[in-house]
Amino acid sequence: MIAKLPEPPYYAVIFTSILTEDHKGYSEMAEKMEELAEEQPGYLGFESARSELGISISYWKDLDSIRIWKENSEHLIAQDLGKSKWYDSYSIRISKVERDYSFFSRNQNRF
Amino acid sequence: MIAKLPEPPYYAVIFTSILTEDHKGYSEMAEKMEELAEEQPGYLGFESARSELGISISYWKDLDSIRIWKENSEHLIAQDLGKSKWYDSYSIRISKVERDYSFFSRNQNRF
Repeated sequence: MIAKLPEPPYYAVIFTSILTEDHKGYSEMAEKMEELAEEQPGYLGFESARSELGISISYWKDLDSIRIWKENSEHLIAQDLGKSKWYDSYSIRISKVERDYSFFSRNQNRF
Repeated sequence: MIAKLPEPPYYAVIFTSILTEDHKGYSEMAEKMEELAEEQPGYLGFESARSELGISISYWKDLDSIRIWKENSEHLIAQDLGKSKWYDSYSIRISKVERDYSFFSRNQNRF
């Protein structure tokens, strides 16, 4: 689903990744991470897609929310990354959304 | 491929979309748009993935590059959109990347 977000400014954490061939357990971890994110203060929404490349974007109220989320999730990630090597490569980009435009059919509203 | 970009700050145009069932001609247009973007001044890179949701991110040097790209591409988009209705819904988010971190295996370098 396309995330329904408040008016900018807000923050986007863009996570782009290519998986290794052996990525057993990856989907479970990704799901767990998304659930954990939803519980965090300042969490606004989540979008993801995967072809050869995977792109996951989480949206946050401010940089403080991202910092707290990072602290709270690091233990979980480290624990799981210790067990496997899912990523061939990845990039994390912290960005401030300054403007947005949306089109929703089927009478969907902004909120 | 994960885009290899210069040091932040730079800009990201996040385009998230859900296609309608009838999206004939869409891939051709998307490819044409990517080729056109690559020729624009200030273009830095492109990433995309599609599952149910499609996410395409183009990266730019500054807001001026995005403005010029928008002006140059509007004619092309309008022309094609007039012929079909590809999108069930979409969002465009203009954001400023403030920080990034990358991991590349296989001795890939930042540049």
